[in-house]
Amino acid sequence: MQGKVIPRIPSGFSELLPENQILFNKIKNTISDVYESFGFLPLDTPVIELSEVLLAKAGGETEKQIYRFTKGDNDLSLRFDLTVPLARYVAQHSADLTFPFKRYQISKVFRGERPQKGRFREFYQCDIDIIGADSLDLIYDGEIPAVIYNIFKKLGIGDFKIRINNRKILNGFFSSLGLEEKTSDILRIIDKLEKIGTEKVRLELETLGADSVADKIIEFVSIDGTNAEKLQKLRALDISSREFSDGVSELESVTEYMRLFGIEESCFEIDLTIARGLDYYTGTVYETVLKDYPSLGSICSGGRYENLAGFYTKQKLPGVGVSIGLTRLFSQLIDCGIIKPESKTLVKALIVPMDRENTGYALGVANTLRAAGISADVYYMQKGMKQKMKYADRSGIPYVLIIGEDEIKSGTVTLKNMKTGEQIRSETDKLVNIIKGDN
Amino acid sequence: MQGKVIPRIPSGFSELLPENQILFNKIKNTISDVYESFGFLPLDTPVIELSEVLLAKAGGETEKQIYRFTKGDNDLSLRFDLTVPLARYVAQHSADLTFPFKRYQISKVFRGERPQKGRFREFYQCDIDIIGADSLDLIYDGEIPAVIYNIFKKLGIGDFKIRINNRKILNGFFSSLGLEEKTSDILRIIDKLEKIGTEKVRLELETLGADSVADKIIEFVSIDGTNAEKLQKLRALDISSREFSDGVSELESVTEYMRLFGIEESCFEIDLTIARGLDYYTGTVYETVLKDYPSLGSICSGGRYENLAGFYTKQKLPGVGVSIGLTRLFSQLIDCGIIKPESKTLVKALIVPMDRENTGYALGVANTLRAAGISADVYYMQKGMKQKMKYADRSGIPYVLIIGEDEIKSGTVTLKNMKTGEQIRSETDKLVNIIKGDN
Repeated sequence: MQGKVIPRIPSGFSELLPENQILFNKIKNTISDVYESFGFLPLDTPVIELSEVLLAKAGGETEKQIYRFTKGDNDLSLRFDLTVPLARYVAQHSADLTFPFKRYQISKVFRGERPQKGRFREFYQCDIDIIGADSLDLIYDGEIPAVIYNIFKKLGIGDFKIRINNRKILNGFFSSLGLEEKTSDILRIIDKLEKIGTEKVRLELETLGADSVADKIIEFVSIDGTNAEKLQKLRALDISSREFSDGVSELESVTEYMRLFGIEESCFEIDLTIARGLDYYTGTVYETVLKDYPSLGSICSGGRYENLAGFYTKQKLPGVGVSIGLTRLFSQLIDCGIIKPESKTLVKALIVPMDRENTGYALGVANTLRAAGISADVYYMQKGMKQKMKYADRSGIPYVLIIGEDEIKSGTVTLKNMKTGEQIRSETDKLVNIIKGDN
Repeated sequence: MQGKVIPRIPSGFSELLPENQILFNKIKNTISDVYESFGFLPLDTPVIELSEVLLAKAGGETEKQIYRFTKGDNDLSLRFDLTVPLARYVAQHSADLTFPFKRYQISKVFRGERPQKGRFREFYQCDIDIIGADSLDLIYDGEIPAVIYNIFKKLGIGDFKIRINNRKILNGFFSSLGLEEKTSDILRIIDKLEKIGTEKVRLELETLGADSVADKIIEFVSIDGTNAEKLQKLRALDISSREFSDGVSELESVTEYMRLFGIEESCFEIDLTIARGLDYYTGTVYETVLKDYPSLGSICSGGRYENLAGFYTKQKLPGVGVSIGLTRLFSQLIDCGIIKPESKTLVKALIVPMDRENTGYALGVANTLRAAGISADVYYMQKGMKQKMKYADRSGIPYVLIIGEDEIKSGTVTLKNMKTGEQIRSETDKLVNIIKGDN
């Protein structure tokens, strides 16, 4: 390789071989199809934003991860999520939008994190949000998990559970203990319950000076039973906090809405340990886990926020949304063997003219197949029949259509099923149905 | 807006309102559907590449436009086209690919150009390429324009013409005049023929010291007639250059292939003025123009190259491909009024429960519609009927389904056609067909 540059991509970045790319796109299309069926509008904001605009709110860890640079006079940054661009978009274009504004965006975002297994520096997020002007009915908190439910049902990646909670319950509970100042610290610790276990969480809570109430907090987040029983136990705690009881009422309503939306009871559960790290959630919060693969963590998270775009506009824009981190999810599903590539090609039929003279006829056959919605390819390289069949086999193409003098004379095509080896000769129109039946 | 950051995007960047985004996506999907029907595989390379790898070949103007920055120890750049990433990808993964390797990629690329009308710094390219290992049959030079032909037929944006030429003809002609050293300069000048006219081109040619032969060059590029006549006139020139006659033979074969592929004679023409600026084309070159809008310039260009990835691998990888600059094309089509948004929404049916008590029934109706492939939304905000209808109207939703006590009692729904004002009450299943008929 003397004098050559070694072809490679930066560490922490990902690209797929065709067979995985086909599968990835199939999943991505299922997600966007469901989003669209629920009336979400597509958006596609720029990858590059002005740093001043993008980082109006950011700080700390987030800011360190940003790909930020200057070009000419411009201080620019690559988006690190799709929420800030949404806030900017809605504030900028609100006069042209109809509210409630339901949008989805499936795009790459960029975070210069220390690379580690399963973490990517460039990855797809699949976001939906519903934004109200001034107010947004609580029922939308039930619609968001309904969308997610439909997606994971369609993807068929096994049993899943949507976990829900309400930040008002947590906030109200902590302030009733006189810990409102420490809420975000406590939330951060509770968030780790599943990962590090009860005892370590208790120790961490005690270091906050909350040792006298650590037990109470642990007891609270350990409330168990059915969804109805959990709500009952929450009420039985008799916490004298308006925020707390508002949260419980909201949570009860949202679970009722979720049932109305047709989400099976076995697919969701109230989980009081869910807080979501982000500061800006103010009500309902969601996580989603695969029952057989809890170690994957949450594969889809989000929640309700009081005000989307306070940094850009005085207009109050409450909303609710979730995000699927698709690049990571895909990589995990592949690694766990939950999904695997079905085909190395989109081509259903390879047309093989035996000689260059047969090309015109072959192209006519290709046109017929494509008009019938079949992805068809023609093998034009002038090689022996063996090599032509080897190409079809290596490519994973299920059907080969052979065209020679006999076929042209009789107006037929010879179809070979590459799996069974079966061959039949017939008119193209009739073969279309056989090939389509395989779809 | 005191204390607020003004929400905006950097100059030279673009984002669309929902009605235009819907139209943009429709066009983008048509392009990818046709690409897939011809057997091209989807690829999705990283936005960010290592500068050392991406810029192995670049230089001059291109390099100045690159968004390049460092993060940690990494010298990184945003891709400026999809060809260099393809070269890198094929060289890197060649052992896992089947050749001829046909791939498409529809992705954003980034160029920090001086912004001007119709030029974008971040824009979509829709590329197809067919890469051979060591060799690639000439017939693929006919398949590429066949794909393009099918796309522009489907898009229905008016009459178009695919212009083709062959670089070997140009190179052979110039070397027969003893001008081989100046080929690339002359090509650059000829490329401007349409833009600046014959006289200015002649003047520019003369400044190159080629004034004695400027007339000959002008005469050559002015050869006219039908495609067959042009080929005849080229042969009649009797140029004693092997490269020239190879080029004429290739051009003749490619036009024959194009006919075999079903491209109408009126949709393509040999144009000897086409050179394409890029140095790396070595055979067939293409441009595509809209007949009624020649001022838009070429909306789809490409050609044949001898070796895709010489900077990364010793393996010879000849190929042929084209690219549609979709962001620019879309913006031009909108500006010229050739296309216009059809709808501000993807939603076909808005379900309006008169009261919160009707929500369960409404959601059942929504589920039925979605199962039938209809994008449906439910209006949950507790507002008056007038405001609910206003929302449907503003959103451009064609059908509203009203659900009150009467409907629930009788197991029906009241359907309102928002265009005609017509109302009928019926069972949901029957209404599905009416709504679908409007698709």
